[in-house]
Amino acid sequence: MPVEIISVGSEFIIQDTRNNSVAVIARQLLDAGIEVDYVSFVSGQENRLEDILRQAIGRSNLIFIVAKVLSGEYDTAKKLLTRVLKKRLILNYKLLDAIKAEYDARGDTMPPTAEKQALVPTEAEMLDNEKGRTPAFLFAHEQNSVILLPGQPDEIAPIIKQRILPRLDPKTFRFGAVNGMILKTCGLPLSSMKELLKSIDREGGQQYINYVEDGEEISIILTVKGEIQTDVESRLRLMNEQIVKKLERYVYGVGAETLEEVVGRLLTDRKATVALAESCTGGLIAHKLTNIAGSSAYMERGVVAYSNDAKMSLLDVSPNIIERHGAVSAETAVAMAEGIRWLSQTTYGVAVTGIAGPGGATPEKPVGLVFIAVASEQRGTQWRKCQFPGDRLEVKTRTAQTALDMLRGELLREK
Amino acid sequence: MPVEIISVGSEFIIQDTRNNSVAVIARQLLDAGIEVDYVSFVSGQENRLEDILRQAIGRSNLIFIVAKVLSGEYDTAKKLLTRVLKKRLILNYKLLDAIKAEYDARGDTMPPTAEKQALVPTEAEMLDNEKGRTPAFLFAHEQNSVILLPGQPDEIAPIIKQRILPRLDPKTFRFGAVNGMILKTCGLPLSSMKELLKSIDREGGQQYINYVEDGEEISIILTVKGEIQTDVESRLRLMNEQIVKKLERYVYGVGAETLEEVVGRLLTDRKATVALAESCTGGLIAHKLTNIAGSSAYMERGVVAYSNDAKMSLLDVSPNIIERHGAVSAETAVAMAEGIRWLSQTTYGVAVTGIAGPGGATPEKPVGLVFIAVASEQRGTQWRKCQFPGDRLEVKTRTAQTALDMLRGELLREK
Repeated sequence: MPVEIISVGSEFIIQDTRNNSVAVIARQLLDAGIEVDYVSFVSGQENRLEDILRQAIGRSNLIFIVAKVLSGEYDTAKKLLTRVLKKRLILNYKLLDAIKAEYDARGDTMPPTAEKQALVPTEAEMLDNEKGRTPAFLFAHEQNSVILLPGQPDEIAPIIKQRILPRLDPKTFRFGAVNGMILKTCGLPLSSMKELLKSIDREGGQQYINYVEDGEEISIILTVKGEIQTDVESRLRLMNEQIVKKLERYVYGVGAETLEEVVGRLLTDRKATVALAESCTGGLIAHKLTNIAGSSAYMERGVVAYSNDAKMSLLDVSPNIIERHGAVSAETAVAMAEGIRWLSQTTYGVAVTGIAGPGGATPEKPVGLVFIAVASEQRGTQWRKCQFPGDRLEVKTRTAQTALDMLRGELLREK
Repeated sequence: MPVEIISVGSEFIIQDTRNNSVAVIARQLLDAGIEVDYVSFVSGQENRLEDILRQAIGRSNLIFIVAKVLSGEYDTAKKLLTRVLKKRLILNYKLLDAIKAEYDARGDTMPPTAEKQALVPTEAEMLDNEKGRTPAFLFAHEQNSVILLPGQPDEIAPIIKQRILPRLDPKTFRFGAVNGMILKTCGLPLSSMKELLKSIDREGGQQYINYVEDGEEISIILTVKGEIQTDVESRLRLMNEQIVKKLERYVYGVGAETLEEVVGRLLTDRKATVALAESCTGGLIAHKLTNIAGSSAYMERGVVAYSNDAKMSLLDVSPNIIERHGAVSAETAVAMAEGIRWLSQTTYGVAVTGIAGPGGATPEKPVGLVFIAVASEQRGTQWRKCQFPGDRLEVKTRTAQTALDMLRGELLREK
C-alpha cells in the first residue's frame, strides 16, 4: 500500500531552502514506522498538478499534498483536489469570519480574493491547525486517504503528530511490519563506516541501512521489516545497539537531533560556558551554537578574527607566534583558544584557523588545511590538524562540525 | 515532450541538505529555456528505483538521473538503467586503471568491490567529468534520452553546461518556445509584491510568475511561453524590465546570485571594509559574508557579543547606554555599530541587537524585535527598528538579510 508525498511549489529550483516540509512529513512517518514510496515536486501550474494528483490517486493509498498558503498554491491544490475527487467547495462562514477578524485586527479591509480561503470541500474532514489559521483537510476516497496540508513545516508537524498519526491504521498503511530510526554521527568517513557496519547491513533484505552525508556528519537511516510489529521493534533495537557498539563515540544523537543541540545540552548540564575564536569558519560555529534556544546561558562571546591584527588585539595572540609559525598553525590555534578563554573567563575556549580557499594556499599549506584547538579549564588545551576536501563552504562546514565534536568530546570527559 | 529529474538517495528525509543536485539541474535547464515537468526522489532500494525508472521512460523524453557515487547508489542506478534499457555492462580497462591508480596514490589496495565502478554500459555515450573521476552516461533509447549523472553538484554543473546543453535540440525538448529567469529580492513582503506585479502576472497564460520565499528574500521565477523563440526572449526582457521598474531597489540580483555575493562585490569595487557586531544573529552575518571567496579583503573582523559584558569590552559600548535604554534598543545598536567601526578602523560597522526568542521577551520587547545599525565613514549612522515573525532561526535569518540589505543600500548611495 504505497505512501506518497506531493510538494506543490517551485522550491526545488532554489538551493538551500530551509523550509523542507517533505522532510518533516517523511521523518514523522518513519518514526511511526511508515515508509514513503514516492516523493514528487510539482510547480503550482494547474494542468501539471492535476496530472500528478491523478497519478498519485491511481498508485498510492496514503497521499500527502503540501502547498504554501501565502503564494496561493494551497487554494489551487484545494480546488483541484476537490474537483478530481468529485466533491464540491462550499463557503464556511466560521472560517470567513476568522479571516475577516484577522484583517480587522491589522486595520486592513479583507480583499474579495481572500474569500476563497474560506471555501471548504464537502465530505472532507477539517483538521485543526493549532499553529496557523489554515486548516488541513482529510479526504477519504475509495481506497485512498488524501491529506492536504498547509506548507509551513512548524504547522505541519503538530497536525501530523496529533491529528493524523494516532488515527492511521497500521494494518492499512504498513508493508507487514516496518520500523525505522535515524542515528547521527560525526567524524567517521563513509567508507570506514560502511566497512564497520557491513555485517549489519544486509542489502535488499529485511533490514537495511541508508546513509546521508553532510560534510563530516553522516545520518544513518535504519529500516527493519518483518511480519510481527513487536519482532520488528526488537530487531530494530538490536540493530541500533550493534551499530552504537561498533561506532562508539562517533554517534552523537538520534532522529532530528543536531550536533549543536547535543553540545548545548552538555554545556547546560555541566553549567559550563564557552567562547569562540573563529578564523576560517567566519562565524559558522557561533551561528550553529546560537541556533539553540537558551544558548545565551553558555555562549559568552565569539570573535571572527580574519585579520592578523584582529587575532592579536581581540585574542591576545602574540605577534611572535604568528610571525614564527604563521596564522595557520597549531601554535596559533592554541594561542587563540587560550586567549579567548582567558579574556572571556569561560570554561572552554574553542579556536579554528585554516585555509578555506579558493585563495590563500601555499605548497606547504594547501586549501582545506585547518587547525582546531579546544582550551579547557580542567584538561588544558587539545588541538587537531585536519585536511578537509571540498570547496569553501564545505571546508567551513567540516571545520565547524569537527570543532563542535571536539568540544563534545571534552565535555564527555569532564567529571 | 516532458522533462524529468530523478534523484536517487534518502536525502529527502534529512532537512537542510545543501547538496541539492536537483536544484542545480533544474536551474541550468531553466537558463537554457527548458522547464522541468517531473521531479521524483527515490531511495536506493532496487525494486522501487526500477518502478520509477520505468515510469519515467514511459512518460518523459528527457530524463536526468542523479545518484551519489560514494554510497553506492550510482552503481545501483547504472546497473538497473542498463538492464531496463536492455544494454549490457562491460569492463572498461582504462577506467579500471584510473581507479587502481587512485588507490595506489593513497597507498591503499583496491578492494574487489571497487571494480564495478569500471563497468560501462554498451551503446551509451560516456560524458567526461572534469571535476571528478566518475563519468556521466548518455543513453539514447527510442524516443528517450536518459542521462545518468554522479551526484555531486559541483561535478554536475560543468557536465550539464559543457556536455549536454550545447547538444540539446531546442525543437525536441521545448514546448514551442519557452524562456525563464530568476530575480532575487529582499525586504518587500510577498503580499505587497503580488499586488505590485498583478498586472504583469497573468496566471495560466503565456507568461507567469512563481515566488519562492526565504525569510526577507523572495526569488521571483519568470516564465514566458510562445511560438517563436526571439519573440519569447524579447517578452521576457520586457517582463524583467517592468518588474525591476516596479520593485526598484528591492531587486538585488538575478539567477543564483546571493545577497552576500552582491554586497561582497560592492565592497570590493569600492575598496571598502566592514566589521560586524552581532548579538541576536549570533554570527550568521559573518558566516554569510565569509562564504564569499576573497572576503578576507573586506571583512576585517566580527564580534558575537551575547553578554552585556562582551558588548562593553569588545565594542566599547558605554554601560550608561545599556542601563538607560536596554541591550535591545536603537541606542545600543548605534553604539555597537560605531564602536566596532572605530575599533577596527573600517569603512563600515554593522550591528544588530534583538530578541530571537523563544526566551528573553518582555511586554515592551516581544520576540522578533530587532534593531539594526550601519555606521558609515561618509554618511554617519543609519538605524532601523524591525519586528520579524517566526521562530529563532527565522528571526536570525531575517535580521541577517535585512542587515546585509541595509549595507547594500549604503554602498549604493556612496559616491
